[in-house]
Amino acid sequence: MNSEASASLLISCPDQQGIVCAVTDFLMRHNGNIIDLEQHTDTEEKAFFMRVEWELKEFNLPRDQISEKFRLIADRLQMKYELHFSDYRPRIAIFVSKFPHCIHDMLARWHSGEWQAKIPLIISNHPDLEPLAKIYGIDFELIPITKENKKKQKMRTLELLRDYNIDLIVLARYMQVLSDDFCRQYPHRIINIHHSFLPAFVGAKPYHSAHQRGVKIVGATSHYVTSDLDEGPIIEQEVMRVSHKDSVQDLIRKGRDLEKMVLARAVWAHLQNKVLAYKNRTVVFS
Amino acid sequence: MNSEASASLLISCPDQQGIVCAVTDFLMRHNGNIIDLEQHTDTEEKAFFMRVEWELKEFNLPRDQISEKFRLIADRLQMKYELHFSDYRPRIAIFVSKFPHCIHDMLARWHSGEWQAKIPLIISNHPDLEPLAKIYGIDFELIPITKENKKKQKMRTLELLRDYNIDLIVLARYMQVLSDDFCRQYPHRIINIHHSFLPAFVGAKPYHSAHQRGVKIVGATSHYVTSDLDEGPIIEQEVMRVSHKDSVQDLIRKGRDLEKMVLARAVWAHLQNKVLAYKNRTVVFS
Amino acid sequence: MNSEASASLLISCPDQQGIVCAVTDFLMRHNGNIIDLEQHTDTEEKAFFMRVEWELKEFNLPRDQISEKFRLIADRLQMKYELHFSDYRPRIAIFVSKFPHCIHDMLARWHSGEWQAKIPLIISNHPDLEPLAKIYGIDFELIPITKENKKKQKMRTLELLRDYNIDLIVLARYMQVLSDDFCRQYPHRIINIHHSFLPAFVGAKPYHSAHQRGVKIVGATSHYVTSDLDEGPIIEQEVMRVSHKDSVQDLIRKGRDLEKMVLARAVWAHLQNKVLAYKNRTVVFS
Amino acid sequence: MNSEASASLLISCPDQQGIVCAVTDFLMRHNGNIIDLEQHTDTEEKAFFMRVEWELKEFNLPRDQISEKFRLIADRLQMKYELHFSDYRPRIAIFVSKFPHCIHDMLARWHSGEWQAKIPLIISNHPDLEPLAKIYGIDFELIPITKENKKKQKMRTLELLRDYNIDLIVLARYMQVLSDDFCRQYPHRIINIHHSFLPAFVGAKPYHSAHQRGVKIVGATSHYVTSDLDEGPIIEQEVMRVSHKDSVQDLIRKGRDLEKMVLARAVWAHLQNKVLAYKNRTVVFS
Repeated sequence: MNSEASASLLISCPDQQGIVCAVTDFLMRHNGNIIDLEQHTDTEEKAFFMRVEWELKEFNLPRDQISEKFRLIADRLQMKYELHFSDYRPRIAIFVSKFPHCIHDMLARWHSGEWQAKIPLIISNHPDLEPLAKIYGIDFELIPITKENKKKQKMRTLELLRDYNIDLIVLARYMQVLSDDFCRQYPHRIINIHHSFLPAFVGAKPYHSAHQRGVKIVGATSHYVTSDLDEGPIIEQEVMRVSHKDSVQDLIRKGRDLEKMVLARAVWAHLQNKVLAYKNRTVVFS
Repeated sequence: MNSEASASLLISCPDQQGIVCAVTDFLMRHNGNIIDLEQHTDTEEKAFFMRVEWELKEFNLPRDQISEKFRLIADRLQMKYELHFSDYRPRIAIFVSKFPHCIHDMLARWHSGEWQAKIPLIISNHPDLEPLAKIYGIDFELIPITKENKKKQKMRTLELLRDYNIDLIVLARYMQVLSDDFCRQYPHRIINIHHSFLPAFVGAKPYHSAHQRGVKIVGATSHYVTSDLDEGPIIEQEVMRVSHKDSVQDLIRKGRDLEKMVLARAVWAHLQNKVLAYKNRTVVFS
Repeated sequence: MNSEASASLLISCPDQQGIVCAVTDFLMRHNGNIIDLEQHTDTEEKAFFMRVEWELKEFNLPRDQISEKFRLIADRLQMKYELHFSDYRPRIAIFVSKFPHCIHDMLARWHSGEWQAKIPLIISNHPDLEPLAKIYGIDFELIPITKENKKKQKMRTLELLRDYNIDLIVLARYMQVLSDDFCRQYPHRIINIHHSFLPAFVGAKPYHSAHQRGVKIVGATSHYVTSDLDEGPIIEQEVMRVSHKDSVQDLIRKGRDLEKMVLARAVWAHLQNKVLAYKNRTVVFS
Repeated sequence: MNSEASASLLISCPDQQGIVCAVTDFLMRHNGNIIDLEQHTDTEEKAFFMRVEWELKEFNLPRDQISEKFRLIADRLQMKYELHFSDYRPRIAIFVSKFPHCIHDMLARWHSGEWQAKIPLIISNHPDLEPLAKIYGIDFELIPITKENKKKQKMRTLELLRDYNIDLIVLARYMQVLSDDFCRQYPHRIINIHHSFLPAFVGAKPYHSAHQRGVKIVGATSHYVTSDLDEGPIIEQEVMRVSHKDSVQDLIRKGRDLEKMVLARAVWAHLQNKVLAYKNRTVVFS
């Protein structure tokens, strides 16, 4: 057991009195030193959200008993919760097509140790980025998609994800739509990058549409994938100014930087267990 | 004649060789010292745009002959052009309803001399802001709009605009839609502020929609008004980050600052004669 | 008593176990429904900071007993704390010289009800803005400063501040330096706007310096005033892009918008009792 | 000869009448179709700057005669100028130490064809990034620096730069100061990234200083290297918001993204021949 490790709880429940008190009392009784606590009340929805992180060093509950003991409080307050340990390394599968900028950026972050995660698997519908996977010693699975093989390839993909024990799927400019059924198997565990400021310019060729409309700012959006294309809960967005001087090609070039930044920030927040999705929105703790 | 004054030409024409040369040669032959020259070629549309500003001090053509003489060049190169003089004070009419933040900001800029313009007229469908108009000694015309009186009030409004020799109409959160017919009488001379990052969240209550969608950034858009609501050429946009902590009320409050800034920047660009609209987009010279 | 009112505690203390628990337990025992709770641990300084806000409606301690009862907890945990009520209207004195943009903006916010505060007093070393004060019916005190009268005028100013029961002083581009002694009488209760991105370009004429250095971004900084000029704890900063095309005059013009925004945001945060200053830095709760 | 290629002139001279006219007339006489023209007048310095780009396809002067013919105009108007061809691939040497994020980002851009340049040489004072150089097949020269070997290593470095015909040196978080003498041999041809918003926080450990000062925004600055450390002409800057929650480690982590973006934008502008340095400032054409 890593003595520097911490645990965190991500909690959501109906708003009511005494929630923070109950949680912090639980931690104190077990000698847990709180490192970070953040809460949010959605007064309209009468919903309460909380993230609390504490040191495991002197905490007097073994890891495998925390959830069980906490359930007593959770049940009383109708909480949904997730328990995470900071020294667990989530296992990421990256899905790509041909554009290399997002995956390049992700691999550089992972390789330099910025991301506390494992990337054992890259899946692509094109062979182009196999050499990149090789450089980093990551398994590359070519799964080309046609109308005919779609179903079969989905099964194979899901099998791979299971075999590799994948926790998080990142669509790094993956040019295929995942089926409803697929999405439902990884709820809030598939992150996509869309190359526009959603909900503006959904669908294909958003930079062309942005140029056509003459906007003065373009953006990128990272969101959890749901069965509604481009409609999932937004995790992070960023924008940049453009002008009449920017051609569609300029937008595409400049946009790449937005895309890789926004995707990286969304993945970071997820890896830190700081994202709570509800009602097609997200609470992103800071 | 103001010896410090300058003249500027806003030019658009089919792209072709020799345009800059022809224009600068014309100015040089008349001893015009160029202060600023900016051009833009839209290679897709094969269209050329240019703004050139020069000192009038030693220019050896009288103001009232410039356009006539320039027409020879313009005709040869199929140019559309506008000629402006920097010491002319455009006459602005502000249309408001009840929200005071944009008009407050505009009047403060005008009053402190930031804007080289005149604001002789404020038109509103509500009496709320009449006292503000009084403070600044500006005529206030109350023109309430109902389904029944709509046509009559439009005629009255147009008459007022003519009587006051209005050059530019600014809709400073004016809560009425102008008729097609009205818009066509002031092409690229009506500036609106829309409280969203267009084309996201067109129509009413954009902050509610933004909150509902869970976006992480909200914006404001200033555009020329055309007969297509919220679809006119965009002049300026700006955004700011928001989070799950922001209620609709927070968005509305924070958004006011965006709205007044974006509107002011759009009006400034227009007053500097730096905006050229074409094909539902704008070239905004810097 | 306003039944919608809330109370908030701003707490700082040495970091230790059980702080959140102790505070939330105190509130729960008195039937306080927490609206917002935010905490921050500075692990380097081993310092803990917290803001908690709760509804007064069902809270079973009278307002005037809260502080006394809370002191028991505070003493045990070596806390410093401030108690605020949301329905108290802080009394602001604005200090100005000649530039109107910041005060214009502040008065518009106050007048439209955006700011839950009173502005009973404007103090200036120049008569220029007296008419503006008159418009809004605010007392205007002309206190010109010379080398000779400096001490006397300071005494008169302090007297005025006492007479008007001023809670917060806002220097809205006030062109005089307050004495050490003056600053010490209003610790973290004087907010200044400096027209640069501190610590770059301290002192006078920052836009000239920025232009000279050829920076591509300029900024503005709002901070609490301490006896070290331009060195007080920063509350808020904002920046904007500029280019080689911007003259010093352009920077000054564009900078005005930054200044008024940044100042307004800092004042807002202070009025919400969301700013905790320590060690020349601030914690600004969100 | 590439028929799609273009040529560009970067011109600076004392401000005077007829410059644009003279240059565009020269191009027209040789049948040059202007793609882009941008000019800037610094009225304070009475200096004029211009960039003009034209198609070579129908231009009736051979490449090697352009400069010679243009010199007649240049001499008359006291111009300094540079002539560039768009199909030339500048040769870049990257200097690094141990931090991989900037070089990773640069190599990804180069490898994907975003940058029209060659990167034949990486020089480092540490062996850490040699494997990365190998991956991309780029020569890696380890040149460790000590007090004793400094002079010798400088000579060796300069020799390598000559041998590789290097046009541009990029210091991608290179942790050594180049000597005056070295800098003078590559005027406006060495680009550095400094991890602060200059002129704030010059020198080492800027993130520590920023954290200490409690700023709410941090930045990065890319500039040409001159013999004055951190004082060269700024090409590009960018910033991001931070808060009291960000530790020095957070600033370092987040700052990496700023650094790589800002450096990439500066290199891009330089590669496009859009940067003109004068008087320790830059004109960056858009």
